[in-house]
Order: sequence, then C-alpha cells, then structure tokens
Amino acid sequence: MTHKIAILGASGYTGAELVRIIATHPSFEIVALSADRKAGMEMSEVYPHLRALDLPKLVKMEEIDFSDVDLVFAALPHGLSQALVRDLPDTVKVVDLGADFRLRDPLEYEKWYGAEHVAVELQKEAVYGLTEFYRDEIRDARLVAGTGCNAATVQYALRPLIEDALIDLDRIICDLKNGISGAGRSLKENMLFAERSTDVLGYSQGGKHRHLAEFDQEFSAIAGRKVEIVFTPHLVPINRGIIADCYVEGDPKAIHNSLVARYETEPFVTVLPYGQAPGMGQVTGSNQCHIGVIGDRVPGRALVVSTLDNLAKGSSGQAVQNANLMLGEDETAGLMLAPMFP
Amino acid sequence: MTHKIAILGASGYTGAELVRIIATHPSFEIVALSADRKAGMEMSEVYPHLRALDLPKLVKMEEIDFSDVDLVFAALPHGLSQALVRDLPDTVKVVDLGADFRLRDPLEYEKWYGAEHVAVELQKEAVYGLTEFYRDEIRDARLVAGTGCNAATVQYALRPLIEDALIDLDRIICDLKNGISGAGRSLKENMLFAERSTDVLGYSQGGKHRHLAEFDQEFSAIAGRKVEIVFTPHLVPINRGIIADCYVEGDPKAIHNSLVARYETEPFVTVLPYGQAPGMGQVTGSNQCHIGVIGDRVPGRALVVSTLDNLAKGSSGQAVQNANLMLGEDETAGLMLAPMFP
Amino acid sequence: MTHKIAILGASGYTGAELVRIIATHPSFEIVALSADRKAGMEMSEVYPHLRALDLPKLVKMEEIDFSDVDLVFAALPHGLSQALVRDLPDTVKVVDLGADFRLRDPLEYEKWYGAEHVAVELQKEAVYGLTEFYRDEIRDARLVAGTGCNAATVQYALRPLIEDALIDLDRIICDLKNGISGAGRSLKENMLFAERSTDVLGYSQGGKHRHLAEFDQEFSAIAGRKVEIVFTPHLVPINRGIIADCYVEGDPKAIHNSLVARYETEPFVTVLPYGQAPGMGQVTGSNQCHIGVIGDRVPGRALVVSTLDNLAKGSSGQAVQNANLMLGEDETAGLMLAPMFP
Amino acid sequence: MTHKIAILGASGYTGAELVRIIATHPSFEIVALSADRKAGMEMSEVYPHLRALDLPKLVKMEEIDFSDVDLVFAALPHGLSQALVRDLPDTVKVVDLGADFRLRDPLEYEKWYGAEHVAVELQKEAVYGLTEFYRDEIRDARLVAGTGCNAATVQYALRPLIEDALIDLDRIICDLKNGISGAGRSLKENMLFAERSTDVLGYSQGGKHRHLAEFDQEFSAIAGRKVEIVFTPHLVPINRGIIADCYVEGDPKAIHNSLVARYETEPFVTVLPYGQAPGMGQVTGSNQCHIGVIGDRVPGRALVVSTLDNLAKGSSGQAVQNANLMLGEDETAGLMLAPMFP
Repeated sequence: MTHKIAILGASGYTGAELVRIIATHPSFEIVALSADRKAGMEMSEVYPHLRALDLPKLVKMEEIDFSDVDLVFAALPHGLSQALVRDLPDTVKVVDLGADFRLRDPLEYEKWYGAEHVAVELQKEAVYGLTEFYRDEIRDARLVAGTGCNAATVQYALRPLIEDALIDLDRIICDLKNGISGAGRSLKENMLFAERSTDVLGYSQGGKHRHLAEFDQEFSAIAGRKVEIVFTPHLVPINRGIIADCYVEGDPKAIHNSLVARYETEPFVTVLPYGQAPGMGQVTGSNQCHIGVIGDRVPGRALVVSTLDNLAKGSSGQAVQNANLMLGEDETAGLMLAPMFP
Repeated sequence: MTHKIAILGASGYTGAELVRIIATHPSFEIVALSADRKAGMEMSEVYPHLRALDLPKLVKMEEIDFSDVDLVFAALPHGLSQALVRDLPDTVKVVDLGADFRLRDPLEYEKWYGAEHVAVELQKEAVYGLTEFYRDEIRDARLVAGTGCNAATVQYALRPLIEDALIDLDRIICDLKNGISGAGRSLKENMLFAERSTDVLGYSQGGKHRHLAEFDQEFSAIAGRKVEIVFTPHLVPINRGIIADCYVEGDPKAIHNSLVARYETEPFVTVLPYGQAPGMGQVTGSNQCHIGVIGDRVPGRALVVSTLDNLAKGSSGQAVQNANLMLGEDETAGLMLAPMFP
Repeated sequence: MTHKIAILGASGYTGAELVRIIATHPSFEIVALSADRKAGMEMSEVYPHLRALDLPKLVKMEEIDFSDVDLVFAALPHGLSQALVRDLPDTVKVVDLGADFRLRDPLEYEKWYGAEHVAVELQKEAVYGLTEFYRDEIRDARLVAGTGCNAATVQYALRPLIEDALIDLDRIICDLKNGISGAGRSLKENMLFAERSTDVLGYSQGGKHRHLAEFDQEFSAIAGRKVEIVFTPHLVPINRGIIADCYVEGDPKAIHNSLVARYETEPFVTVLPYGQAPGMGQVTGSNQCHIGVIGDRVPGRALVVSTLDNLAKGSSGQAVQNANLMLGEDETAGLMLAPMFP
Repeated sequence: MTHKIAILGASGYTGAELVRIIATHPSFEIVALSADRKAGMEMSEVYPHLRALDLPKLVKMEEIDFSDVDLVFAALPHGLSQALVRDLPDTVKVVDLGADFRLRDPLEYEKWYGAEHVAVELQKEAVYGLTEFYRDEIRDARLVAGTGCNAATVQYALRPLIEDALIDLDRIICDLKNGISGAGRSLKENMLFAERSTDVLGYSQGGKHRHLAEFDQEFSAIAGRKVEIVFTPHLVPINRGIIADCYVEGDPKAIHNSLVARYETEPFVTVLPYGQAPGMGQVTGSNQCHIGVIGDRVPGRALVVSTLDNLAKGSSGQAVQNANLMLGEDETAGLMLAPMFP
C-alpha cells in the first residue's frame, strides 16, 4: 500500500533530506511539496541534486489539498507548525520536525522559545519522537514531535544510564561537535564558507541552547528529580553529523553493559566494543547512531561518545522512522541506506 | 533470484563503495570479501562505517570458493587482475574495476602501463564498461572492464559529439577537477589531509595520464582517425566527484541537441537545459552523470561540462550497473539512490 | 617617515587583509577605518582575529578628516568609489581595490557594469594597477586602479607571451579555480558553507564575467588587434587562492623562456623550472605569483599555470605594493611575508 | 646583531613553520637546515611554498658545522634530541621542539615514552618552554624544552586558576579540537585527506595521551598535590589550530578576573570580555593565544576556552619567542604577524 506524503518546508535542508530518503522508500509517495518564498519553482531549481527525481512543483502550503494526504512532514521554522497542525483535517497524521511540540509544558515552551504556544491542547497530545524510547506511543499517535538533533544524540548516550541510576546526575558534561547543515539554509554571515571553513566555534554555551529544554524535560522525568546538564555545541567545518562527548561519573564497565543491553535489538543504534569510540564520519547519510564507552585512567570517570547524522537520524531519518510506525509499515522501511564514506 | 557476489580488493575505497551500494540491492548477496594485507580482519575494523552491516570476514583471494560465486567484482591494483581472471572458473562472471582490460591493443597496454599483458586473449574478449555505449555487448559478456573514472566523465560529454561530427577533433581541451578519493587509500605524502585541504593541484599534465589511452582508443575508433585530446586533471579538496570542463569548437546549440537526443532515455545521464552547467556536488553518492552546454560569446566555441561521482558512476556504481545487465537484472536495480546534499 | 593610511570599506575581506598586511608594515600607520553598516563598532567585533591590534574604531566615511590622510585604500563595492574619489582633496593619493577605474573606455565600463561612469575624467587619469607592467606610471599616479584578482592571475601568465607574439591569439582558453573569499562577505545562499564545501561550480561561463573587460582592454592593446579569450572561473572549497590553467597554442619552450626573461628580476613573480606547475596552496597569505609551463604530448600546445592569493597579490597585497611606489617607499616594504603552509 | 640559526628536522611541519616565521625576523639568519631522508634536496622541493626564499640546502645533521651556529631549533621525532643535544658544543643554545626534555623526572619520561632517557643530566637542566611562566629561567637557559601544543593551550587556561586556588582540582575536564597538522607529515592511513575531511575523531581518550605527563607535572607542582585532569583531543578537518574547552567548578567571574590579571601585560595572551569565547580560526598563523570565560546557568560551573595555532604559539612561534629571550632580543621580534582570516 502506498502512503501519500506531503512535505511542508521542502526548501530547507531537512526537507531535501526527506526527499532523498523517500526516493528509495518502497511505500511512500510524495504528492505535495510546499515552500513559502520559493513556491512556483521546480524542486530541481532549488536543489539541483534532486533533478533526476520526478517531483511535484513547490507550492504554497494553502494550495495543498490535504484530503488527499496521509501524512505530513512539517519541516518549518520554529513557531509555524502550531497553527498549521491545529487546522489540518483530523485524518492527516503529522510528523513535525521543528520545535513546536517537543515540550509538554506550555510554560517551558514560552520560557525557551519566547512566545506563547497557540495550540496547547495539541502540545499535550504530541508524542516525543525519540523512537527507541516512545515506540508504542508513536505507533498510535496522530502527531509526533521530532526531537532536536543534539537532543537525540545525547539522549541515546545518557537515557539508559539515568534509567539505571549509574551516573552522578549533577556532573554530566556534554561537549558536542556539530555539522554545519544543522544551521539550515538561512542567510547568516557566520555561516558563509569563508567564515566557517577554518574555524571551530562554540555557541550558546553556559546553558542558553534551546535543546536544553528537552534535556531538562526528559532527564528530569526519568530521574524523578531536576537534572541540569552542561551542554556545549560547536560548529566544525563538516556538512553533516553530530558527535557528543559525554563526561560522566560512574563505573565505565557498568555503563557499557547498560547501553549494550538497552540497544541489543535496536536496528539503528549500535554500541561499540568497550574501550572504542566512534568517529562522526562513520554514520554519514545513514539512519544510524553509534555509541562508545571509554573508561578514564581515574576510576569512576567515564566518557560516552555518541554520533549520528543530524539530517538523517537526527531529523529526517528519525521522521521517516516514526512515520513508518504511524502508518503501520516496517520501522526500517527505506532507512537501510549504508553510511557514505569517504 | 539472489546472485552470489564476491568482491576482491574490498579494503580499497571502490570496494567499500561496492558494499555500500549492494547493501540495499534487492538481489545481490555478498558471499566473499578479499583483501591482501588485511585478510583476517572484520570489514568493520577496516571500515567502521560499515559496522552495522552483516558481512563476511576479509580473506585472502585464494581462500574463496569461486564455485559458489556468480559474479566477481575485482577492485584490485592495476596489473593484478590479469592472471586472476584468467584462472577463474568459466562459470564466474567478472566486472574488473581496474585498468587491466580497458585497452584492446596489447601494445597500447604495454606503452601506458609499462608491462606486458599476461592474458592477451582475455584482453580481446573483455567488453569496455561504458554501459550506455556498450550495453548489448555487456549483457552477453563474461568479462567487463570498468572504465577509468575520468574516462567515463569526459566520454559522456564528447562521444555523441564525435559520433555526430559536431566538433573540431584537433581542438578538444578537457580540464578536470577531481575528488581525492580517486587516489585511493594508499599512503602518499601528497595525499595527507594537511597537504591537500587548501590546495588545487594539477597532475599528469601534458599528456601523461593513463586515462588518455582510453580516450585515444575510443575517440579514434569513433572518428575513424587519430584523435588526441588535451587532458588535465586537478586535485580539489573534496572526497568525491569529478567535473570536466570540455572546451570544444563547434555550434553550441547543435552540441546541446546532440546530447539531449543521445541521453533522452538513459536513466543515469541527464542533460541540463541549454546554457546551464552542473556543479560537482549535485551527483554525490548517486549513479548519475549530469551534463550541461554553454555557448561562448565568440560564435563557434562551446563549453561542455560533465560531472559524476568517481566512486559511484565512475567506478562502483558503473560496475553494479554492468553486473545487473550481465546477470539479467533490471539495469537500475540498487542504483536509484538519490544524490546526497548537503 | 610614517604614512597615514585610511581604509574605506574595512569590514570586507580585502579591508581586513589590508589591516593584516599593514600590521607589520614598517612605515604605514592606519589612522581611519570606515564601514557603512558597521560604523560605530570596534574592528575586533567585526573581525575577532584582529583583536590584538590597536586599531581605530569603524566610522562612516564622511566622518574621516582626509586632510590628515596621505593615502586611501578604497575597498568599496563596485560603483561607490567614483564619486568618492572625485570629491577627495587633491593631496590624498588613492588606491582603489574595486572595479571603478579599471577600464579606460567609459563605454566599455557602461557595457560591463551596467551604469554610466560618474567620474570620466578620473577614469582616464587612473593607472591600471598591475605593478610589474605599469610600475613607472604608478610611481607618479595619484589614483591607481587595482586589477581584478582573476585578471591579475591570467595576465601574469599571458602578457609576455602576447608581447612576444608567441601564441595564437584566437585560441586562448583560461580555466580558473577560485578561492571563495573572492565572493566577499556578502550574504548569498550559494556562499553558505554547506552549499560550497563539497562542490566545484563554474560561473559566468561563456563570456559573462566582468574581468573579461580587463582582458579585452589589456590584451587587445598589447596585440594591436581584438583579442577575446575564453575564461571560466570555478568556485572550489578553499578560502584563498586562484589558479589559472591557460591552454595556448605555441612553442612551450619559447613560452617558458619568455616568462623567465620577463620576471627574472621581479621580487614577487617566480617562474618554475620548465615542466613543473605550481599548486594553489603554495602562495597562500603571500604577495607572490608562481607560474609554470608544461608542454603537451602534441607539439605546439602548451599549458601555462599561474597562481596567486586573491586577497593578497590579487588585491590587498597588490594595493600595498602600489602604495609603496606612490609614497616613495621600497616596493617590497611589508610584503615579504612567506606563504603559510600547511 | 644577527644570530646564526640551524634548524634540525626542517622537513617536518614545525620546521617549515620556523622557516616561515624567521623569513621576516629582523635578526635571525638561517645558516643550516637538516633533514634525514631528504638530505641533498632543496627546501623548495620539499616545501614549494618556500620557493621564493633564499635558503641553504637540506643536509644530514652530521654535516653541519655547529661552531658557526648560535642557536639550534631541534624539530626532531621524539627520542632523537637527547643524544644530539648532549653531543653539541657548549656554545650552542638549543630550543627543542620535541618531547625529550619536557619532563623533569626520568621515571615519568620512561613511563610515558617507553624508553630510558639517555641524557638525564640535561633533562634536569632543561627549562620548560612555557614562556609566560618560565621567562626568567628561559632567558638564562642553554636548553629550552618546547611544550606540547595541547599542553600549552590548556595551561594558559588553567595555570592561573590553580595558582589562585579557584577551581576544584578533582573535576577538570578538557575537551580539545585539534588541527591536523599536529600529526605531522608522517604517512598514516588515518591522516589521508579522504579519511579526515568529513570526520571528527577523538583519540588517546581516557588518559593515554602523552601530554598528560606535562599536565600532571606542571599542575601537581603548582597545586602541591596530585592533579589528574580528564583530557580528550579530537581531530577536526582544519590544518592549524587547537581549541580547548575546559570545564571547571569554581566561580566564573573570579576565574575571569584571575586570567585578566595574569595576562594583562602579556603581548601574546589575550583574555576576552567576560561571557565571550574565541573561535579557533581567529589566531591562525599568529603567535597569539585567546582565552574566554563563560559562566554556566548552574552557579559554580564555568567554561574556560583557550585557542592557539599549534604550529605557531603551540610550537614554532613559542620556540622563536624563547630563542629571542635566550639571545637577548626583544621577546616579540619577528612574532607580530597578525592572524590570517579568512
């Protein structure tokens, strides 16, 4: 059975990545692509690499006939999904790749995103899209909120350790190195090639990054107490990928065992042998997350390294994985693309 | 029906790329992987990005039971395929990704590769693997010789123009920009990251590059006279891709028409609208070749730009395309992966 | 004696490069820096890499007291220098890094830049800033027009050959690979890191690039007839540098001899031994131009390769070299910085 | 007065960087360059970017007449300096850029470098080359041991904080991102362009990196107790630069004040305004170190970020700075080169 898919915000990088993935998906058919400023253009004009695909022209969102759509991927700027999803027909399932429905608490949303939420009821209904931890809820959901890409990378490393009470909750430090596609296709001087190509630059340090809201929500819920991690992302001159170095206090072997046990049967999360850590380049273009654990020379200290492709497992791949569940397909359908290297 | 595949020389980049492509091929099963120095290792040790795949261990070539193999991809250093292919059982089909069988004339082989050919009979039997121009022969072949990656890029641009007698055969200048994976995984000082990452460097200029042997053979055969193009490859700091700027004398519109007509029904070769040229980044990871034609301000001069991914359409993708034909499969099986961008 | 220097348009890359070079210049003192939108900011806010230098605050151009200035470097967007230079006090010397005074013919200016020139008298007075060929005029000039960076790269390779009548004037093909800083710091989607970092992209092909106006003017003047070269620039993922492959018809050895003779005593132009070609990375950050000549396997064909750093010898270094002459300083003052590698 | 300089191991990257810096040094003259395997070659063959300089030919070390040399820079592989320095005439001063004399304790040396030290007396005499903290001793030294490049980056951030007892000594976590030139010019598969250009890869995690020996030695000496930091370097696809994120527990404002006070008069160490952190690209090619402090949302946690160019301030620039002191020159002579950006 073929499912009819619309992608809203198809002119962004996550939109293009959805198209790339769906190009070889056995049961998804793209019936509509929307873009705001680029409506009227062919996708091949906006993304020449998609030239060989047979795709609908970009239109304004309001031109789409949603009665003919089974599932919508909303890859819109933060804030735009709320009203949109509220107004869609009930028959349409939605995977939102933005931040609008990631937080369950309207006050937290307002605090981090600086605006009142306009669809509070939906916010409560939305299921957090970290598939491996919300699989059953996602299967039954009408609306799934894709996680932040950083939020996914770190949660794969730390959730089992918090669940199993293996680490000191007050001493979690996560240092991330981030591919630049995470900043999207928007025009910012500091995203120019000449600015980024020979630089490593931290940003939103000290507790200012919005993905902290997701960490606070998820980790505190698991722990049953307030957990506030230290989190520093950095821009590195690579298009895709996130690698997180998570410094924790706990027994490294127990940590490794916990992760191995947790992900043993997961198709997209792989734990490396003890003492090995992955590199960011080994998951590029795939829906995989690789995790490694290394013990420090000082007992009781451990490093947990987690890496994924921010555009794939960190957003568009995760979105397709969730859509597969929501539409009753095999969870791995269309997602077995091997990483590309070199 | 599943075809049993062996990859010889699996520890090189084209070997790894074959594995990546075959990972989602519907009817190919990898039954053996060989590597010389790395025999005994798991593929995941040699290529961590392939960790999530279920692959046979690397072995020495002589450990493979070829009676259980339908087709061999030989991704060996130049010179090693000749004896090997000669000694394989007749039942095994072979796609050779090296240079051993590209040239039909033993003297030409000796001239360019500096050694006598040890399997001259096979050299005559081998079919040149430029699928779109040797499709029927490939379908019936036991042995197909994959083209040089540069040779493929330029031939897609120029063969139809020579066939249609549209350009001055004495004034063909091809300036190529080449991704660095083309140099393979071998240890050379000038392939270190620090040496290449801020440099553009021409090499084998002035008529020294071995792919000229293929151009001479193919273009002269089509033209019915000696054709010697000017050909300059350059290393650019990108992993994958080749883009060829071919400067020719002829009518640009007629040139464009010729290419459009020639490739109209080809699944993997796309000609852009007149006046547009592709960028190297728009075919990465795919089996596509994109071609554009631009007329110069001076009438009678034209620029034909051709681009493909050297590891995919330029070698491993081409190899799978040919294998599909040789095994009676759909030519596009496993090859519809969309390009990856960014 | 210290010369008082003002830099107009200091917030662009050529402005920052002027500051970098002047930082170790023995007799230049920066007394004013202007920027339009960034007026009021410290240079260290606009360019953190200049933080350790003691520099004047950025101001609006009209705030500068030019009576206290010996020489102005105008690094302004094309079109803005004309009126400005016209209105400066006669006592101030000017090196213009933009295109406003490169063309001597007002009609040619209008044709290529799409607007009437507003300071036609100055346009005639301005000296073309290719130091090695206009040295005497520059020494006496009040206004020097810096060359286009591509224009400089190619002219170093070809001017002596045209002067010595060594090459076929109707068959000159120049294929350039260009560092991305040449596009400046302006916000364009196709200059984002993610767009450029894995791409090689030609632009303004077929005779549309404005630097052709300079080639036409200069080469035709030398030859005494109309000369129209083919010229194709390409963006490569490197910050700095231009390398030009110039394909010509002529005797390679004679060509090499001509270049060696022409540049023998030049401090900033080096000709490599016959048969060697430079790489783009070997002049980075320096005021040098390196040139090589390679003969083709077909007699009568030659490749002349020329490379320089577009921000240094291609613009800001050239500008300082000219300013040295205009101010009676040693031509090499402040310009002996060795290239940076890796 | 001109000082006669010999560079041993001139064919490595730190050797080439010494040549680059000395090219504009007012009082250093290079009289000898040695290389082992490349003896007999011109420096321009080994490093084409140095072609325009007038340099002695590369020779074997034993061919150098050290009676004519004032100071030797030894940029040799670890282990080779010990016997060499021991056997030099007493009149020659030495700056060693390798690891042979960094550790004062022969047992520690043996533990970390796996071999007995063969010049134990010299090991004791050698002064640790972190100029800003050993300035007086360096001025009088015959032998100065250049620091590890990582070791320098982190010590600039942390030494004042340990001296001032501002941070918890048991909770110091340093996450570094390292330019690839730090690995030198030696042939390793994982240093090939194609391996590194799209990867971020941690190495020597968990307490295995040899620079830890320097941290242990220096920090423990200051603190008067054993201090063992967590230290993780990462390869990022950039040629030059190190940026260290140091996560500490302490009062961020007090930390900032301590650093500001400590480096107020230092010419090469700059502390940014509170709440700002430097990027790695803002010191490239210069002898500068930039440091920033950011407080976390959780009181009592701070991030101290330190960056320098590993080839300049991290090794060859530091070496020249120390040589200036040893030879009675101005400490900043030849070292005021501004950073290069973009």
